[in-house]
Amino acid sequence: MNAIADEIARLFESAARAARAAAEQLGRAPRPAKDAALRAAAAALRARMGAILAANAEDLAGAPGLSAAYRDRLTLTPARVEAMARGLEEVAELPDPVGRTLAEWSRPNGLRIRRVAQPIGVIGMIFESRPNVTADAAALCLKSGNAVILRGGSESLRSAAAIHACLAEGLRAAGLPEAAVQVAPTADRAFVGAMLRGAGLLDLIIPRGGKGLVTRVMEEARVPVLAHAEGLCHTYVHAAADPAMARRLLANAKMRRTGICGATETLLIDAAVAPALLPVLVADLRALGCDFRADDRARAICPELPAAAAADFSTEWLDARLSIAVVDGVPAALEHIRRHGSEHTEAIVTEDAAAAEEFLAGLSSAVGMWNASTQFCDGGEFGFGAEIGIATGRLHARGPVGLEQLCTYRYLVLGTGQTRP
Amino acid sequence: MNAIADEIARLFESAARAARAAAEQLGRAPRPAKDAALRAAAAALRARMGAILAANAEDLAGAPGLSAAYRDRLTLTPARVEAMARGLEEVAELPDPVGRTLAEWSRPNGLRIRRVAQPIGVIGMIFESRPNVTADAAALCLKSGNAVILRGGSESLRSAAAIHACLAEGLRAAGLPEAAVQVAPTADRAFVGAMLRGAGLLDLIIPRGGKGLVTRVMEEARVPVLAHAEGLCHTYVHAAADPAMARRLLANAKMRRTGICGATETLLIDAAVAPALLPVLVADLRALGCDFRADDRARAICPELPAAAAADFSTEWLDARLSIAVVDGVPAALEHIRRHGSEHTEAIVTEDAAAAEEFLAGLSSAVGMWNASTQFCDGGEFGFGAEIGIATGRLHARGPVGLEQLCTYRYLVLGTGQTRP
Repeated sequence: MNAIADEIARLFESAARAARAAAEQLGRAPRPAKDAALRAAAAALRARMGAILAANAEDLAGAPGLSAAYRDRLTLTPARVEAMARGLEEVAELPDPVGRTLAEWSRPNGLRIRRVAQPIGVIGMIFESRPNVTADAAALCLKSGNAVILRGGSESLRSAAAIHACLAEGLRAAGLPEAAVQVAPTADRAFVGAMLRGAGLLDLIIPRGGKGLVTRVMEEARVPVLAHAEGLCHTYVHAAADPAMARRLLANAKMRRTGICGATETLLIDAAVAPALLPVLVADLRALGCDFRADDRARAICPELPAAAAADFSTEWLDARLSIAVVDGVPAALEHIRRHGSEHTEAIVTEDAAAAEEFLAGLSSAVGMWNASTQFCDGGEFGFGAEIGIATGRLHARGPVGLEQLCTYRYLVLGTGQTRP
Repeated sequence: MNAIADEIARLFESAARAARAAAEQLGRAPRPAKDAALRAAAAALRARMGAILAANAEDLAGAPGLSAAYRDRLTLTPARVEAMARGLEEVAELPDPVGRTLAEWSRPNGLRIRRVAQPIGVIGMIFESRPNVTADAAALCLKSGNAVILRGGSESLRSAAAIHACLAEGLRAAGLPEAAVQVAPTADRAFVGAMLRGAGLLDLIIPRGGKGLVTRVMEEARVPVLAHAEGLCHTYVHAAADPAMARRLLANAKMRRTGICGATETLLIDAAVAPALLPVLVADLRALGCDFRADDRARAICPELPAAAAADFSTEWLDARLSIAVVDGVPAALEHIRRHGSEHTEAIVTEDAAAAEEFLAGLSSAVGMWNASTQFCDGGEFGFGAEIGIATGRLHARGPVGLEQLCTYRYLVLGTGQTRP
């Protein structure tokens, strides 16, 4: 057992060292080379479509006990492979985030100081069995000049290997180091452990998946982590909300897609408007297939609503279910969010600019919205082109993590012989 | 023993929870209140001068076995207390970093997206026995809206408590929560352990001190760390260097102050100019009291130089000693830095812009300089007004950490009822 663990630790270390050397080369690669690699990888995905689908069929055959939802996430189709290829081409179209001047100033002694964007280095990506993440994450890391080691779910290893072959082909075609994109060379879970202990070898770990996976990574990693464990998002319907807008926004925020992290899980509604508005909101959502968990004040208005248990307001449903609490104004809404929220995304619906300002100023969440659907918390919707995830921690990046957030910075100090007094 | 550890863990947790509540209030405090607190604390430092010096005398009396250098760092004088007070007032003069709009754009659907600076939250500061760090770090955290728990060296506890009383007085005078600045309530080293394990309670740990302290914090912390373990800085004298400038810069970079992290530890010099220039550089530095560890190629030119041992090029001397290696051009200089450097600060001296560009592009250090002394790596010299440390990690902030780097960001999304398609 220890011999196997040692062997896996060695495998990881050797992958990470190759990734470091590749990162040094990729980090200085000009944009045309990176874009050529992405486009060649897209072409390879299309050319190897048959092999990718065959590998995916083997993965599916090897995992007969999966739930229907899990099976769907694992399944590749020609359309899904084509979407992956298009995704690579779209990342090639995005501006190069590396080398941007983020700030520049001069000092009285004549020194010019420039803060410039540079790649982070070597990123470890740990995710569950959605094979497309292999291509999406690799594309964003490649374009931002970072090497990446991808460890997907063990059920999708053959699919991941087939996709990875296309990325390797793209890197080769562009004269870039193949080790810039690697997939874990073993399905053994000890490889994840080696990644989590990989301080000095990895610069950053990005986990994507359910709360269990992300929480484990956050708790055990000795490497910085960029992630969100859950998105317990709130929509707060303020006393001065436009009722028609509140209906439209809540229906979208809750029901457009219930399984994404930016979906609203809890409705907070001001006591002043709840008697008139809450029954309409509930009827709208019920018609869309939503059910409810309501506090006593909400049930006093809509007695048919099921009572919320103590833990319900701290539960990310990721489903067609809405928690409802009646509150008294902005401070009470903020207090509820502080107690139950996950610092992801919260929205206020109001026509009262002062109330919106008070609400937004009082939040510490990664994203605060005014009169917009919480489902807009997304890198594409923010204009980032693509995202590798959403971060709710306090350091480096918060909210959608796109190409710019996959960069760090450094300083250039340009002098003419200045010495420090 | 376990009962004591449990009790200390409880002490830490209670301090951290009070800090969190204070941070929520301080994070929204307007600039005038924060500045008033800093100015009132400065006034209190002057008013309580006698008590502070008496507490410091007790600290000194209680630690008889200290080295002269350590004793000097621990000692307070009226001038040093006055400098602390002036430091607080200078931070009050700096712009408020909180609430700045870092970026703003609109989306085709009319959503306006704004990235704004906000405090990180609760910071843990672990440092050795320089009592002034108590005031300096507290001032920067306070101004940036962060609560801080300060754990200084156990030899300086009475001094730290006396200084802390002034900060508490300042916070009180300004109507801000006293728990925003706390000192560890116990000298027990287990408190440091509790801080290091404080994920969820602390958002960030900043260690300041020797390599041993910082390395321990980096290795053991389960909380993000912003720091540098060492500053193994290089000055590279390129073949096209102006000899007079090279002499001036190297003397300053090595000898202005030898004990700071931005001091140059290694001279790299191109083989093309070493025969003429190295003897002059060595003579200059020798006249300033520097000694040397040189590789074989340097000793072929200056045979009197002591030979460098294998580990010398990886040693941060922090003293009047210079490692010297002769290299062949920019790629070899970069390769040496990659193998031995600490990603802190490196400088090239050259009149050749293309060589400078090649050198700076090839670095991954936090700071790269052209024709300037590495000793300029400092928050004050960068124009930040003050710094809480230098960071050499890859995430969040690199180089000098000032008020702006003590902030994170969040997004405000301002809509007019948009729903996501």
